[in-house]
Amino acid sequence: MALELVSRSRCFEGEQRVYSHNSAVLGCEMKFGVFLPPCMLEGEKTECPVLYYLSGLTCTHENFIQKSGVQQYAAKEGICVVNPDTSPRNVNIPGEDASYDFGSGAGFYVNATKEPWSKNYHMYSYVTEELVELVNKNFAVLPNKKSIFGHSMGGHGALICALKNPGQYQSVSAFAPIANPMESDWGRKCFEGYLGDDKELWKQYDATHLAQSYAGSPLEIFIDQGSDDNFLPQLLPDNLLKACAGNDHLQTVYKLRQGYDHAYYYIATFMGEHLAYHAKFLKN
Amino acid sequence: MALELVSRSRCFEGEQRVYSHNSAVLGCEMKFGVFLPPCMLEGEKTECPVLYYLSGLTCTHENFIQKSGVQQYAAKEGICVVNPDTSPRNVNIPGEDASYDFGSGAGFYVNATKEPWSKNYHMYSYVTEELVELVNKNFAVLPNKKSIFGHSMGGHGALICALKNPGQYQSVSAFAPIANPMESDWGRKCFEGYLGDDKELWKQYDATHLAQSYAGSPLEIFIDQGSDDNFLPQLLPDNLLKACAGNDHLQTVYKLRQGYDHAYYYIATFMGEHLAYHAKFLKN
Repeated sequence: MALELVSRSRCFEGEQRVYSHNSAVLGCEMKFGVFLPPCMLEGEKTECPVLYYLSGLTCTHENFIQKSGVQQYAAKEGICVVNPDTSPRNVNIPGEDASYDFGSGAGFYVNATKEPWSKNYHMYSYVTEELVELVNKNFAVLPNKKSIFGHSMGGHGALICALKNPGQYQSVSAFAPIANPMESDWGRKCFEGYLGDDKELWKQYDATHLAQSYAGSPLEIFIDQGSDDNFLPQLLPDNLLKACAGNDHLQTVYKLRQGYDHAYYYIATFMGEHLAYHAKFLKN
Repeated sequence: MALELVSRSRCFEGEQRVYSHNSAVLGCEMKFGVFLPPCMLEGEKTECPVLYYLSGLTCTHENFIQKSGVQQYAAKEGICVVNPDTSPRNVNIPGEDASYDFGSGAGFYVNATKEPWSKNYHMYSYVTEELVELVNKNFAVLPNKKSIFGHSMGGHGALICALKNPGQYQSVSAFAPIANPMESDWGRKCFEGYLGDDKELWKQYDATHLAQSYAGSPLEIFIDQGSDDNFLPQLLPDNLLKACAGNDHLQTVYKLRQGYDHAYYYIATFMGEHLAYHAKFLKN
């Protein structure tokens, strides 16, 4: 689990770094971003909370760290931010680069069970286990102060990570998540491709279904959505909100942003609000 | 001078737009970014000051609007921000795409006099005249409240625009500018390619030489520089600072940022400080 430093740049008195490593779970080299807030750079190496961000379709580890403006807020709050890539890379599966919404850049945060994807496409285990262990081992983060958020496919990813692991994440938020993937074209394509025909298995990776059956410790879910998002028919936040409303273990904060679309300009606008939200849970 | 809207996204309650138009000065279609702060979107259409940003080598109109985080500060200050592309595009000059530091993406903000570049490469006139007229005509900006800044090659561009047009720009700042291009490899390559061998002509586009001979209205120049910038040998800010120190019409504010490099992470970190700086001059 050796890490190789790919790049580092000073940013808001902290450091934005990119690392690569050989992932045992995915069977390939993976890159991820780490923002170290100023307090983690000083001699004392203060242990800080850590916030994971999962990106959407087509993204690599780069989009988020270049476009979201997260560093400003993470520096202020003293939170380490880690963002993985969205799929295994260069694993030589025929067709892995054929479409934007399946294969490379579209791991969908599931553990594939269907050949040939089942050999490498284990993004769920990667982001909930291998990457977390790697980060805990290599950076001065507090292992019990860990939250997660994401955008679109990554919003879906963040939601299922929190819903499937009660108590593991202190808080969860999502920008324009694919909230009920079994009812969206994007979700059905990936579930069928990675998981086959077993709809019961699909439900284990669908936030709306997971919210219906959630029986863990009380959890608040922060959903953020632009009113002018062209992809709303794929996202279906109302289905998730309804499922949460019917489950006493769950509570939602829902923000509908008038006039905003699906782009990073939207994410950047509300990034500060999300960091402040997670800080409330991570720093208490 | 008709404008075509390429894209628009709500951002920090304002709008980040991209337009294209046929440039008479450059003889090609050009794209540029415009951020409209919230006060320009409301019914009243308040007239706002305008701040031009010139980008560095290899950039298009996209890098700055995606990576700098400018919108947050421009929204707060009520300033319209306009950022052009860095060269003519698709003008079919042999070799225009052959290198990163000459031709496409590297117009160097000069008016070329040497064939074959002299037909299209008039970025100086484009950013100081044609684009300004276009913006004044199409947006509710205050024509007499106009400032300029930029990065690297674009920092050089901003400096020469201000130094060659006393009183035209209310303020000027530059991140890591190529401050004395005649003494840098980047500058010499572009000056020789676009302007030929006439060193007197080169001096008319070199901030350090312009600062030596500047005799216009009093001007303050804000220079920002990262201490760990790999390109310092090309940038030579000390030469410009020395020239300004020897000219009573000029004054400098110089900020050396410890540990910062040449990347947009550096620019984003100090973007708020630059917007506040320009606001002082634009809004008084």
